[in-house]
Amino acid sequence: MRKIEHINVEADIQIDELLKKGEGCAFGLGRLSYAADVLYEMVNEATVFMGLAGAMVPAGMRKIIVELMRKRCIDVFVTTGANLVHDLIEALGHHHIKGIYTESDVELRTKGISRIYDVYVQDEAFESLEKWLLMRYAEIVEEVIGSASPTLSISELLSYLGSKINDRNSILRTAYDLEIPVFCPAIQDSILGLHAWLFNQTKNLKVDVFSDMDSIIEIAYKSEKNGAFVIGGGVPKNFILQTMLVTPNGFDYVIQLTMDRPETGGLSGATLEEAQSWGKVSEDAKTVTVYSDATITLPILVASLFTRLKR
Amino acid sequence: MRKIEHINVEADIQIDELLKKGEGCAFGLGRLSYAADVLYEMVNEATVFMGLAGAMVPAGMRKIIVELMRKRCIDVFVTTGANLVHDLIEALGHHHIKGIYTESDVELRTKGISRIYDVYVQDEAFESLEKWLLMRYAEIVEEVIGSASPTLSISELLSYLGSKINDRNSILRTAYDLEIPVFCPAIQDSILGLHAWLFNQTKNLKVDVFSDMDSIIEIAYKSEKNGAFVIGGGVPKNFILQTMLVTPNGFDYVIQLTMDRPETGGLSGATLEEAQSWGKVSEDAKTVTVYSDATITLPILVASLFTRLKR
Amino acid sequence: MRKIEHINVEADIQIDELLKKGEGCAFGLGRLSYAADVLYEMVNEATVFMGLAGAMVPAGMRKIIVELMRKRCIDVFVTTGANLVHDLIEALGHHHIKGIYTESDVELRTKGISRIYDVYVQDEAFESLEKWLLMRYAEIVEEVIGSASPTLSISELLSYLGSKINDRNSILRTAYDLEIPVFCPAIQDSILGLHAWLFNQTKNLKVDVFSDMDSIIEIAYKSEKNGAFVIGGGVPKNFILQTMLVTPNGFDYVIQLTMDRPETGGLSGATLEEAQSWGKVSEDAKTVTVYSDATITLPILVASLFTRLKR
Amino acid sequence: MRKIEHINVEADIQIDELLKKGEGCAFGLGRLSYAADVLYEMVNEATVFMGLAGAMVPAGMRKIIVELMRKRCIDVFVTTGANLVHDLIEALGHHHIKGIYTESDVELRTKGISRIYDVYVQDEAFESLEKWLLMRYAEIVEEVIGSASPTLSISELLSYLGSKINDRNSILRTAYDLEIPVFCPAIQDSILGLHAWLFNQTKNLKVDVFSDMDSIIEIAYKSEKNGAFVIGGGVPKNFILQTMLVTPNGFDYVIQLTMDRPETGGLSGATLEEAQSWGKVSEDAKTVTVYSDATITLPILVASLFTRLKR
Repeated sequence: MRKIEHINVEADIQIDELLKKGEGCAFGLGRLSYAADVLYEMVNEATVFMGLAGAMVPAGMRKIIVELMRKRCIDVFVTTGANLVHDLIEALGHHHIKGIYTESDVELRTKGISRIYDVYVQDEAFESLEKWLLMRYAEIVEEVIGSASPTLSISELLSYLGSKINDRNSILRTAYDLEIPVFCPAIQDSILGLHAWLFNQTKNLKVDVFSDMDSIIEIAYKSEKNGAFVIGGGVPKNFILQTMLVTPNGFDYVIQLTMDRPETGGLSGATLEEAQSWGKVSEDAKTVTVYSDATITLPILVASLFTRLKR
Repeated sequence: MRKIEHINVEADIQIDELLKKGEGCAFGLGRLSYAADVLYEMVNEATVFMGLAGAMVPAGMRKIIVELMRKRCIDVFVTTGANLVHDLIEALGHHHIKGIYTESDVELRTKGISRIYDVYVQDEAFESLEKWLLMRYAEIVEEVIGSASPTLSISELLSYLGSKINDRNSILRTAYDLEIPVFCPAIQDSILGLHAWLFNQTKNLKVDVFSDMDSIIEIAYKSEKNGAFVIGGGVPKNFILQTMLVTPNGFDYVIQLTMDRPETGGLSGATLEEAQSWGKVSEDAKTVTVYSDATITLPILVASLFTRLKR
Repeated sequence: MRKIEHINVEADIQIDELLKKGEGCAFGLGRLSYAADVLYEMVNEATVFMGLAGAMVPAGMRKIIVELMRKRCIDVFVTTGANLVHDLIEALGHHHIKGIYTESDVELRTKGISRIYDVYVQDEAFESLEKWLLMRYAEIVEEVIGSASPTLSISELLSYLGSKINDRNSILRTAYDLEIPVFCPAIQDSILGLHAWLFNQTKNLKVDVFSDMDSIIEIAYKSEKNGAFVIGGGVPKNFILQTMLVTPNGFDYVIQLTMDRPETGGLSGATLEEAQSWGKVSEDAKTVTVYSDATITLPILVASLFTRLKR
Repeated sequence: MRKIEHINVEADIQIDELLKKGEGCAFGLGRLSYAADVLYEMVNEATVFMGLAGAMVPAGMRKIIVELMRKRCIDVFVTTGANLVHDLIEALGHHHIKGIYTESDVELRTKGISRIYDVYVQDEAFESLEKWLLMRYAEIVEEVIGSASPTLSISELLSYLGSKINDRNSILRTAYDLEIPVFCPAIQDSILGLHAWLFNQTKNLKVDVFSDMDSIIEIAYKSEKNGAFVIGGGVPKNFILQTMLVTPNGFDYVIQLTMDRPETGGLSGATLEEAQSWGKVSEDAKTVTVYSDATITLPILVASLFTRLKR
C-alpha cells in the first residue's frame, strides 16, 4: 500500500520531472506518469507499433512523429488517410491555419476554407495536392504496374509516394528514408482515395487490400517483444492489436491516449483489459490508458521519452 | 420564438408519440424528436446512405438493420469489418452472449471467451467462421478470379459472401437479396482480413482498394437528393460524407448518433456544421446530431420511422 | 449464459414493449431495459429518493417530475437551486424559449436573453422572479422568523415558497401539496441565493445549513428499503447517497442517468460499484447506470413505469 | 491568419517552454498554451477566484493549491466539502492510498476501505476526522455561538476549523493564515455535514446559508478586474460566476479545466460563451476551456505560472 504523494511544482520544472513526481498521484496524472515509464521501457525492449488516428497532423503534431521516427522509437506506423493527406499538404509547401471553432461554416465555404475544429485548410492546398497526386499515380502506373507484380500493396503505394516527397520533414518521406513501414488500411477513406478514383476514370491504378497483412503480421510474429503506442482509436488501434489474434503472444506493452469511453461498446473506447480477453494483449502486459486530449499528452510523453533516452 | 412545452408521458405511450411530444423539449430529447422528422423526410425524399460503426451487431441491432433494408429505407450501406464478422457469426448459427462488463478478462481468456463490453463471444464462433471463410475465399478464387476481371472490389467480395449465406436474417444476405451495395473500406481491419491473410499463405485472393469509389460516388452523383444516416463515427462516417467532395452538391439530410465530442478535433466527433465548411453537407441541409448511446436512439428512431411509414 | 436477442421494432410499438424487448440487448439499451425493471421494483418496494441535477426543468422535464410526485413515485426530492428557479419562472407565467445553440452569446445579451444550451430565458422572467421572491422572503421573515424557532431549514424555506405558488403544475407547489420534502443543499448557488442576499441588505433572513440533515437521515433510517433515482450527478447524487454513511444499511436500489465518466475521479461520474466500497450502496443492491442524455432516458423510464403501474 | 507551427520537443524541455511552443498548435494543446497566458495575466491583473470541484485533493493536488495560495495567486477559494474533508484527513496525519480502480468494491468494504477511482481511504482516517470535528464543533458552540452574533457563516466555520489545524501544509490552515476566504456552499453535502448532524443530536451548531453571499459579492464588486480559475464544474463554478449577475461587470478572465460536455445542457459543461449571454463573463473577456483531465492540466498550468512569475 503506497500513499498518495502530493505533487509540488516549481518554476523551471522540466516535463520529465513533473512526470516523475506525478507517480505518487492518482487519476490522469498517475496514469500519464506510468505511461512515461511504459513508453521508455517499450522503446528499449520492444518493436513499437504506433497507431495515429484523429487529426493530429493538422493540430501540429507532425514534427513529433518525424522526430520519433528519427530517434528510432517507431518501428511500424499505422495511420489514417487524413493524417497522410495533411502531411502531404505541408510537404507541398502549404500550411494549416489556426482558426476559430465558432466561425460560421457556411461563410467559411464561401471563402474556400475547410475547417477541422480550430484549424483551417484553404482550397489551394487541396488543389496542389490533387495535381501532385495525379502525377504520382501516373508515374506509379508506368513504373511499377508495368513490372512483374502489377499490383501494389497500400504500404508500397505509400512508400512510393514517400520517395517522391522533397520535404525531408514529411512523415511519409521520413518513413521512406528510414524504411519504416507505413500502413493505412482505409486509405480510400481520404483524399488519397478520391484522387485515385479520379485517376482511375482514365487509367488503372490497382492496389490490393490484403497484401499488407503479411508484412505487419510477420513483424509482430518475429519480434520477441511487441509494444503498441496508440493515439486515438479507430482503424489504427484495431489493425495493430488484431495482429496478435494470429500470432502466439499478445502485446507486451500498450499505451492508449484517448477521449473515447468504454460504455458504448465501440472498439475505439474499449479498455486494454478487454483486449486481454481476446488475447491481443498479454496477461502480464504493462498497459495504461490516459483519458485526455492527445495533443497535450503526446508531446508530454515524447518530451519525457527523449529526456530519458538522452541519459 | 417558440416556447418549451413540458413533456408528459402516459401509460401505454407509443414511441412515435413520445417523439412528437418531445419536439417542444430541448437538449437530447429535442434533437431526437427532430431526428425522427429528418429521418422520415430523408427516407421519402432522398437516397439513404447508412453508416454503421461501433459494435452494433454484437449489441443486438442486427434485425433493425435488416428490417430497414427490407422496408427499403437504406440504399447504400457502409460499415466496419467487425459488424460484418458478427453478422456472419450469427448467420452460422452461433450466438453472442450477454456478459458482465466487470468480469476478469484474463479469466475470460482461459475460458475461450472474448469480450465486447458486456457481450461475450466464444472461440467456437470464430472457429466456425474461419472454416466458412476459407471455403468461400477458395470458391471465389476459383469462380471469380479466373474470370475476365480477376480483381474484385471489396463490395463485390461482400456481395459474393452474402450470396452464400443461408440465413435470410443476415445483414449481408439481405443486402445481397435486395441489391443494396455494402461498402467496408477497412475490411482488412477485421477477422475477414485476418482470414484473407491466412488464405493467401497458399492462394491468391486479390481485392482492389479503390474500385468501390466509382460505385458510391456514382450513386451520390446521380441522386437528386442524398441523405446520410450515420451511427457512430469512424470510417463509415467519412467515407459517406467525402463522396460530396467530388460531386457538385452536399448531403441534403444528415443524422448522426454518437457519443464522440468535437473538441479533440477527430472526424468522428466533428459537428455537421463543420462538414458544411468542406461542402460535404449542403448549406441548407437538415442536419442533427444526437449525443446518446446509439443502441438506445437507433431503435427509437426506427420505431418512429416505421410508424410514420405505415400511415 | 443468456444469448443476445436481436431487437426488432414494429410500427406503433409502445415504449414499455421496446424496453421489454431490449432486455436481450447489450450496451445502453440493455442497461436502460434493466433500469426499467429496477425502477418499477424500487417504486413498489422502497422509499424513493430522487436526485435531479442538470437543467432538466428548462429542457422540458417539469411535468414528468410533477406526475411522478402525483403518482407517489417520489418520496424525497433533492435538487439544485437552478431547477427550482426555473420551476418558479414557469409558475409565474413565464416561459422558456426553444433557442439555437450556435447563436452569438454577446448578441443574446444585448437582447436580454440568457442561454442554457438551446434554451433561452428572457430578462423579464428573472425580473418577475425577483419581485416575487422579495415579497415571499419578507413574508417569511414576518410570519416565521418572529416565531419561537427563528431559524428555518432550507427545506422549510422551500416548503413555504411552495405553499405560496398558485400554479398547481409547479414542482415546488406539488411537493408542498403532497408533503414531499424538497432538499436543495446548495440553494445559495442560484438566483434564490442572490435574491436572499439582496433581501438581506436591509432585512434578516436566516436559514440554517445543517437542519435538514436530520430529516433526510431519519427517512433513510426508518425505511425498510431505500432506493435512489439519480438524474445527473452533482450535489443531489452525493447528498442522497451519503445518508447511508450514518445509517446501518446501504441503498437497495440505485438508478443513475448520466453522461459523466468515472476516469477523472469526480463523484458525479463515480460508478455505483465504487459507492459500495463506501457502504452507500448495499452489497446485494440492484443498481444500473445508463450513460445517455437524461432528457431522453428519463421520459422513457417514466413511460415504462407508468405503464407497468397501471396493470 | 496565422499558420499552425508544428511543435518539436527536445530532451530536458521545461513545461513553460512546451506551452510557449504549443501556441502554434491547435485543439487541446493550443487551448492549454493560451490558458497559460490567460492565467499569468489574470494573476497579475485581477482578483482571482479559484473554484475547485472533483476529488482533486485525494488525487494529490493539495500542495499545488497551498503553493498557489502562498504565492498569492488565489484571492478567493470556492470548493466542495469533499476536498476539505480530504485536506483534513491529511492534516490529521492520515494518508490517501494509491489503489486499483478494478478492485472488487464489495471486498474493499470488508477491509474497511472506501474507493475514489484509484485512491483508497481507510476507515481509520474517517474515525480520526470524526473525533476531531466533534471537538471543534463543541469548541465553536462554546466560543463563538455564545457571542453577540450567535450564527456563523459557512466561511466563518471553515476559517475557525482552519485556525485549529496544526498542519501548515493544509489548504484550510493556509487559507486561514493568509486570510484567503474559503467558500463551500454545499458544505452539508460531505462528511463535514454528517458530523454536524451527529453533533446536533445533542448540541446546537447553527450555520447560516446566505451570510457568505455578502462577502463574495463584495469582493467581486470592489475589484477592478476579476478572474475565475475553475477546476471542474459543479457548485464552485456557478457560485463564482453567478456573483456577476448582481455586479455591474462580468469576469474579465476565465479558465475552465473540465471533461464535461455542453450538449446535455448542465451548467458544469456549459461553455464560457454561454456565460456571456448571462452577463457572467464580459463581452471582451479572455476565456478558455481546456477539455482534459485536470490532474494533468492543473500542474502544467501552475508550473508555467510559477516560471513566468519568477522572471
